[in-house]
Amino acid sequence: MKALVYGGPGEKSWTEVPDPSIIDPGDAVIQVDTVTICGTDLHILGGDVPEVEAGRVLGHEAVGTVVDVGSGVRELIPGDRVLASCISACGLCRYCRRSSYGQCLNGGGWMLGHHIDGVQAQYARLPFADLSAHKLSHRTTDEAAVLLADILPTSYEVGVLNGRVSPGDTVVVVGVGPIGLAAILTARLFSPAHIIAIDMAESRLQAAKQFGADIAVKPGDDPLEVIYSVTEGLGADVAIEAVGIPGTFEMCTGLIRPGGRVANIGVHGSPATLHLEDLWIKNVTITTGLVDTFSTPVLLGMLNTGQLDVSQMITHRFGLDDFIEAYDVFANPAGTGALKVVLNRR
Amino acid sequence: MKALVYGGPGEKSWTEVPDPSIIDPGDAVIQVDTVTICGTDLHILGGDVPEVEAGRVLGHEAVGTVVDVGSGVRELIPGDRVLASCISACGLCRYCRRSSYGQCLNGGGWMLGHHIDGVQAQYARLPFADLSAHKLSHRTTDEAAVLLADILPTSYEVGVLNGRVSPGDTVVVVGVGPIGLAAILTARLFSPAHIIAIDMAESRLQAAKQFGADIAVKPGDDPLEVIYSVTEGLGADVAIEAVGIPGTFEMCTGLIRPGGRVANIGVHGSPATLHLEDLWIKNVTITTGLVDTFSTPVLLGMLNTGQLDVSQMITHRFGLDDFIEAYDVFANPAGTGALKVVLNRR
Amino acid sequence: MKALVYGGPGEKSWTEVPDPSIIDPGDAVIQVDTVTICGTDLHILGGDVPEVEAGRVLGHEAVGTVVDVGSGVRELIPGDRVLASCISACGLCRYCRRSSYGQCLNGGGWMLGHHIDGVQAQYARLPFADLSAHKLSHRTTDEAAVLLADILPTSYEVGVLNGRVSPGDTVVVVGVGPIGLAAILTARLFSPAHIIAIDMAESRLQAAKQFGADIAVKPGDDPLEVIYSVTEGLGADVAIEAVGIPGTFEMCTGLIRPGGRVANIGVHGSPATLHLEDLWIKNVTITTGLVDTFSTPVLLGMLNTGQLDVSQMITHRFGLDDFIEAYDVFANPAGTGALKVVLNRR
Amino acid sequence: MKALVYGGPGEKSWTEVPDPSIIDPGDAVIQVDTVTICGTDLHILGGDVPEVEAGRVLGHEAVGTVVDVGSGVRELIPGDRVLASCISACGLCRYCRRSSYGQCLNGGGWMLGHHIDGVQAQYARLPFADLSAHKLSHRTTDEAAVLLADILPTSYEVGVLNGRVSPGDTVVVVGVGPIGLAAILTARLFSPAHIIAIDMAESRLQAAKQFGADIAVKPGDDPLEVIYSVTEGLGADVAIEAVGIPGTFEMCTGLIRPGGRVANIGVHGSPATLHLEDLWIKNVTITTGLVDTFSTPVLLGMLNTGQLDVSQMITHRFGLDDFIEAYDVFANPAGTGALKVVLNRR
Repeated sequence: MKALVYGGPGEKSWTEVPDPSIIDPGDAVIQVDTVTICGTDLHILGGDVPEVEAGRVLGHEAVGTVVDVGSGVRELIPGDRVLASCISACGLCRYCRRSSYGQCLNGGGWMLGHHIDGVQAQYARLPFADLSAHKLSHRTTDEAAVLLADILPTSYEVGVLNGRVSPGDTVVVVGVGPIGLAAILTARLFSPAHIIAIDMAESRLQAAKQFGADIAVKPGDDPLEVIYSVTEGLGADVAIEAVGIPGTFEMCTGLIRPGGRVANIGVHGSPATLHLEDLWIKNVTITTGLVDTFSTPVLLGMLNTGQLDVSQMITHRFGLDDFIEAYDVFANPAGTGALKVVLNRR
Repeated sequence: MKALVYGGPGEKSWTEVPDPSIIDPGDAVIQVDTVTICGTDLHILGGDVPEVEAGRVLGHEAVGTVVDVGSGVRELIPGDRVLASCISACGLCRYCRRSSYGQCLNGGGWMLGHHIDGVQAQYARLPFADLSAHKLSHRTTDEAAVLLADILPTSYEVGVLNGRVSPGDTVVVVGVGPIGLAAILTARLFSPAHIIAIDMAESRLQAAKQFGADIAVKPGDDPLEVIYSVTEGLGADVAIEAVGIPGTFEMCTGLIRPGGRVANIGVHGSPATLHLEDLWIKNVTITTGLVDTFSTPVLLGMLNTGQLDVSQMITHRFGLDDFIEAYDVFANPAGTGALKVVLNRR
Repeated sequence: MKALVYGGPGEKSWTEVPDPSIIDPGDAVIQVDTVTICGTDLHILGGDVPEVEAGRVLGHEAVGTVVDVGSGVRELIPGDRVLASCISACGLCRYCRRSSYGQCLNGGGWMLGHHIDGVQAQYARLPFADLSAHKLSHRTTDEAAVLLADILPTSYEVGVLNGRVSPGDTVVVVGVGPIGLAAILTARLFSPAHIIAIDMAESRLQAAKQFGADIAVKPGDDPLEVIYSVTEGLGADVAIEAVGIPGTFEMCTGLIRPGGRVANIGVHGSPATLHLEDLWIKNVTITTGLVDTFSTPVLLGMLNTGQLDVSQMITHRFGLDDFIEAYDVFANPAGTGALKVVLNRR
Repeated sequence: MKALVYGGPGEKSWTEVPDPSIIDPGDAVIQVDTVTICGTDLHILGGDVPEVEAGRVLGHEAVGTVVDVGSGVRELIPGDRVLASCISACGLCRYCRRSSYGQCLNGGGWMLGHHIDGVQAQYARLPFADLSAHKLSHRTTDEAAVLLADILPTSYEVGVLNGRVSPGDTVVVVGVGPIGLAAILTARLFSPAHIIAIDMAESRLQAAKQFGADIAVKPGDDPLEVIYSVTEGLGADVAIEAVGIPGTFEMCTGLIRPGGRVANIGVHGSPATLHLEDLWIKNVTITTGLVDTFSTPVLLGMLNTGQLDVSQMITHRFGLDDFIEAYDVFANPAGTGALKVVLNRR
């Protein structure tokens, strides 16, 4: 089959590799029908995720059709349409027993396109398929579902739920690329009074408003002044970091009110400064997290009830053979206006 | 009357000042019967709390007898024995309405010995006395109660409750001076499996064991190795920072397991480094906080039922006129073995 | 002044009574500008609330203008426009300290029109005015605000928050009179997948759909069948009882799934049967409650941001002198289509 | 092999039956080393659990040695010593994904000795063995572990955690047979101020005091008076029902304070009366539940750290061939003083 293979920092190719097959009784193999690219894939290509080895097939977000299952698989049979989640989970370790699947101790967690071959390919092997692949209703389209492989549950669990967004809150989202936009979309489920988007790109701020932010802080504006003007000078209830660099994290800790929460979603490559000399007295809560995907079934349900409209997030569509071009478009959002790009089997 | 007056960095005196009197209808004036010194007072004397002005009477922990009340006071009358809490609270602002008294917006929060004259004096004025002074049962001794003015509720709320200490947890307390010891004492209320004390001073580690730590990590030992040995290599569930310097905070973030909590109690004067490049993926929660004292009534109840034995924390006793000597003893624990020193009216 | 005076079961009159005045330093006296009638007032007139004595001025929901304040009042001055909340609170007792104002132990709780004279009058005395009366923004209309005196915070706190309504949930509201409609309105703040309204009156079911229910169960339908059809045969996540009779409560306990919640809002006059032989094994949670009004400031904020549109709830308007007619209209919703009736000073 | 076989209401025998074998790839078969009898088994024999068919091997609490495993079992191999938990769990359904194993939708929940043959036998088949059987440390004795098959996690999860027992609380346990005693033991993990035991049998009240209750209410005493005397007339924070009859449940709802919790553990065969005419206004929470056993790993850890001493609960020991006698002793605690009886393979 063909797959998008990482060749070391800066190197990738859409090339022939051996077909995947069942290794463990809990595995399933899928034909990939729809797949997308994550900002994390760009980090890998940038060399920022050194545990990914050259030769690895990338990708951790796909929808596919089951073509084979191991002898221990209970819930899936060939022909099932499934969402391949970014997180694999044994279901048995102390973390999995408390729904903290992202921290699985038995060979789970973020495996696909990281420690094992991923889904940017014609076929893919999914470990622990019973827990990690979600059967799809015929009412759910591939393109909607594929956004629930990572970006939606990540923004919801790690941003919105960790940040304890509540009705009437003022929520700041720092960085409104795809993950920040998904945070805006899912924050709205809790009816905050204000969602304030902060970004350097005017086009992203426009998108943020379409996704539900009511206030956009432009590069020249003072975020604190804007936030103070709608919070009686107190600061935001929740700040969601969706960039992954020290400056934006530090900005978040400066924007919240006493008793506020900073929910970090960003993937960081270097340390940040924590201003404890200001924060020690302010009753703040700072959270980090890899997604656990416990919310995926609930989010899938919301697609079907029409509560979540994720379609506006997809700006470009390609065939699988156009993977290199798709990467180029996705990697250059300033030039292309790309949010999420999807690739469909044709 | 006489009072301990701050004279600017490094300067203090036990000297004559005007008697306090009722200013606001919600005030009470107490005769100070028992009072203690806080590590924060040493920070003030070190010049680290610049908002404290020269001429300020220090102190925010006392037990006294009401001698006068304003016209708006409902709950207190002259003669009542009360605990003067470190936190004053208006009871009306958005923070006070949710029990977050430490963040009071209307002239409350940490006021005594900070923004207004404190209780290291023969008499003291207590603002918002109905909410901020706690009537004492005859079963409660002055010396037990005075430890509930700050140190016990702080360690309990900001350390133990923020850290969500739970039965079976492994809890690390970094820094076992008085506040760390109080964290050990109150962590035990939730039956953790292990309480691990870390400090540079052997004498403090001995005290930690008497207060309920089962493991002491000595200066030469590797804390992570000790913690891994009792947590199957995962790390601690909770790390409580009770020192207030960057190094110990950073140590705490390195000692917890995925999904663990760092509860900062320490008063910090400078920023710390937050290793987001490691932590972003680990589902950690970091909290800070000034005490709100919502737990003070519950802790007072536990004194009476014998559930909390705080007496072991008092190592030295003085009369009020010995305030300068008491400070010297308290400021030099390595030489004196001091934990808490109390001063009693005689 | 004139007031609506309870004369014993079945008896009421709009009649001359002495003007109220300041009794306690914490009191305020307001001129009543807008006032409404609660289903509970009908219960009182029905003789179901025996602690209400003949001669009592009824009413616990009003907006007014402060005309006098006691010496201990901090936050209000004559001329302030305020919402008079149904709950008075001392702010000092163990319940008030944890925001459980409805359970105040010092002469608070539901006092107005119950243990003391209420607000269905030209003037009214409000005890503990600092905590219990909420200053209104000029952006808030009297008619919107008056619905936040009782019905909105009650449905939100006792129904929606106690029931832990969450995104994607299926919520059943049994009884869609005014309080049930308010439960629908506030449940939507948490984005449930379905809100199912159950009532005997077709007109109320129509209203329920306008307020946001997506499914209405008509008298002839089998509620369980409807609920099973949208929950894969499991039952509802949350059932909110908004009637106050045994049959509807028992219906609620039969409609929820294992792990579901029944949140009782209804005012009950007689016991219900609890089918523990079915429920013991089902992990259900049943809650009851008088409103605490801790959410009133948040809900007031949502009026201003446009997140809550309560105006559709008001069906009839009267002058204060038409109080008897207003009661007649409100007491006969089947004939009049009344939801909430408001009376305005002219 | 021999097994304790239910023969219909009132009928049981220790008799020869076919050996169990692997049916599903997730099964394990154990040799039973230590087993106990539950009050629920007596209910079955009393005919109160009609879904149990004649011919069923009873028993859902055992420690054993794995002798065979299905092809899908990952975590166990023959020779492993395991705790056979009362709850089996598929690990994949919506309930299992949120640790609510007792409500498993795919053939799990309380299966052993209920819907399938149980563990009062020389050998037993355990479905979903990876999740439902817990490997034991060599430090854990059979007799300690067997009490964690049902009674300890049930009292802890359904009584103590559902009741939200907190430091300083007053907790009432109504019914202090084995499950009530286990509730006392595990309630202590949260340091309540008082644990009040209520029972009709003096001998059980004596046991309750040994397990950690500080107050015993004898048959002649007025429970409410006793509770009021230690709660300033308010009522208990938590009442744990551990009997399973209407009268004791109704007693619980009458003993709690406004804002209090009733946690039902009892297995009920008939409805109770819920006095909503009193309770609607009191902010109470009532919970029911079958154990989920999510706490079993934590409780096993506490055996090893010495935090839980369950040995005092075992009053009688037998060999497997003495099963009929063991039932007689257990069924007649008034005469025998039996708490838990264990049967050991010899």
